Amino acid sequence: MSAPWITYRPELKVLDCTIRDGGLINDHLFDDDLVKAVHRACVDSGIDYMEIGYKASKKLFAPANFGDWKFCDEDHMRRVLGENDSSLKIAAMADAEKTDYHEDILPKDESVLDVIRVATYVHQLPVAVDMIKDAADKGYEVTCNLMAISIVQDAEIQQALEVLAESPAETVVVVDSFGALYSEQVARLVKQYREALAGSGKEVGIHAHNNQQLAFANTIEAIIHGANRIDATMSGMGRGAGNCPMELLIGFLRNPAYRLRPVLGLLQDCFVPLREKFEWGALVPYNITGQLNQHPRSAISLVAEDGPQDYVSFYDKIVADL
Amino acid sequence: MSAPWITYRPELKVLDCTIRDGGLINDHLFDDDLVKAVHRACVDSGIDYMEIGYKASKKLFAPANFGDWKFCDEDHMRRVLGENDSSLKIAAMADAEKTDYHEDILPKDESVLDVIRVATYVHQLPVAVDMIKDAADKGYEVTCNLMAISIVQDAEIQQALEVLAESPAETVVVVDSFGALYSEQVARLVKQYREALAGSGKEVGIHAHNNQQLAFANTIEAIIHGANRIDATMSGMGRGAGNCPMELLIGFLRNPAYRLRPVLGLLQDCFVPLREKFEWGALVPYNITGQLNQHPRSAISLVAEDGPQDYVSFYDKIVADL
Repeated sequence: MSAPWITYRPELKVLDCTIRDGGLINDHLFDDDLVKAVHRACVDSGIDYMEIGYKASKKLFAPANFGDWKFCDEDHMRRVLGENDSSLKIAAMADAEKTDYHEDILPKDESVLDVIRVATYVHQLPVAVDMIKDAADKGYEVTCNLMAISIVQDAEIQQALEVLAESPAETVVVVDSFGALYSEQVARLVKQYREALAGSGKEVGIHAHNNQQLAFANTIEAIIHGANRIDATMSGMGRGAGNCPMELLIGFLRNPAYRLRPVLGLLQDCFVPLREKFEWGALVPYNITGQLNQHPRSAISLVAEDGPQDYVSFYDKIVADL
Repeated sequence: MSAPWITYRPELKVLDCTIRDGGLINDHLFDDDLVKAVHRACVDSGIDYMEIGYKASKKLFAPANFGDWKFCDEDHMRRVLGENDSSLKIAAMADAEKTDYHEDILPKDESVLDVIRVATYVHQLPVAVDMIKDAADKGYEVTCNLMAISIVQDAEIQQALEVLAESPAETVVVVDSFGALYSEQVARLVKQYREALAGSGKEVGIHAHNNQQLAFANTIEAIIHGANRIDATMSGMGRGAGNCPMELLIGFLRNPAYRLRPVLGLLQDCFVPLREKFEWGALVPYNITGQLNQHPRSAISLVAEDGPQDYVSFYDKIVADL
């Protein structure tokens, strides 16, 4: 094709993970009205999936310290979604080793949820595979989000993909947790995932972080190379630097099934005020940890401090500690 | 190469255009201390060129309404740069039809300037070529920045490149004035420029805008495809959505000649305070004009208004006016 960017791929699907990933900024303490507004915007804009939170263990995380979207109990979800009488599918994330999945994930016919997204570091893969099987047996569509892929060696990625190819997960997501990847690396990973999963009928997804202002660009790169399950968040809200902004993604996808206008309405009504309360985006400390392929926790700590920020000392310490 | 992003290209050179492009936000009313600090950071970080402003016509632009960097008189430049006793080259931009170039651009041996960057829309090319010859005859290194390339047809670009290949311009810059280009388009343009200029010894440059959060990504894409003259600004400061951020570019280039630390020091000392006074970045209105391949002037007007912003009405009006 001479200008592939003016066409669209009907099989590509979009997932909004604003409440789940954005909740890492505010311990998931969102007002019900905000969650309802995100749900409404997802439905109105034609988005395919909305990830509403985690299925976190109440033994590990005291419910008194978190909002409801850390746990996604059925009554919490029904309080804001009703029975979700729409074509939008509802997803929750279950972290390997942080979820009491046997008890807390109900059979699908008792749940508002349609999809369980199992998030795992590569060393937790055996647990993750058991979680994937459990969720699939309970009737859910299941994905596996292989996290922090920028610090995993090729042979380990390959082994993980071979195991996941045999699992009931329908999608395996390339997750750039540190916002460290450049486009050539994203292209290489998406190709590797597609080749390893070829013939299994599984799709490849992309979940990008914006530490280097590359989340949208890397998402486009993944799409070019065949990723068909795309994560984004409203106003890019997400931990640290945030995620691929939905308003850019929807504007880029030329599929007439998607509409930008409801997303813009949500941003002006809800996310401009939300940015007054919480901070996210590609700030300089996230640029630094992203470029050095590090977890953003040190940058998150710096950004959370009051007063002027000493970028130079932060950089010096990171370089000294390498 | 299996991992080209960990190598570097010694022939690649970086130009800082903070004061020139950022000056479009504040009518070039920068304090001398800020200009000196940018100059110092450019020298200390190993940046190759600093573009300090425009050579604008005083007949078209009343000096009382603008800062000195709209005009770059020799005594203004010497006031802050001295004789620029460094290896950093100093550049100024001359806009076609907005510059009294015969009078206002002095012979190089009378000037602090090393480089004249001739900026032109494609319809102004004959004037631009005369300006390029004039500046080259006066002894300058000369570039041609072909603006708003996202709305120019291929045949016109090709014709312009054929003319410029015969000119004394040493570099032709791909300028994404509207921040509208996606990476595949950047790759295609850089290839077209390189092929048209092949054998002439000329280099291809990239000047990206950040309307869609793609300035850094598109700059990387241009580098991958052979652009060797790279524009960026401190903290991404520039008109509207701003430019490719220098702090990301320098961190990405692995050339040991460049150092990130002086850039970080400049940001914390000068650009954090400057952001309190002036606003730039990939705000939603710029996302919209960028995606629709329009000049950002309507978005600049909206952002300049006081009070809450109605993104939906802005979008509706643009779509209605298409």
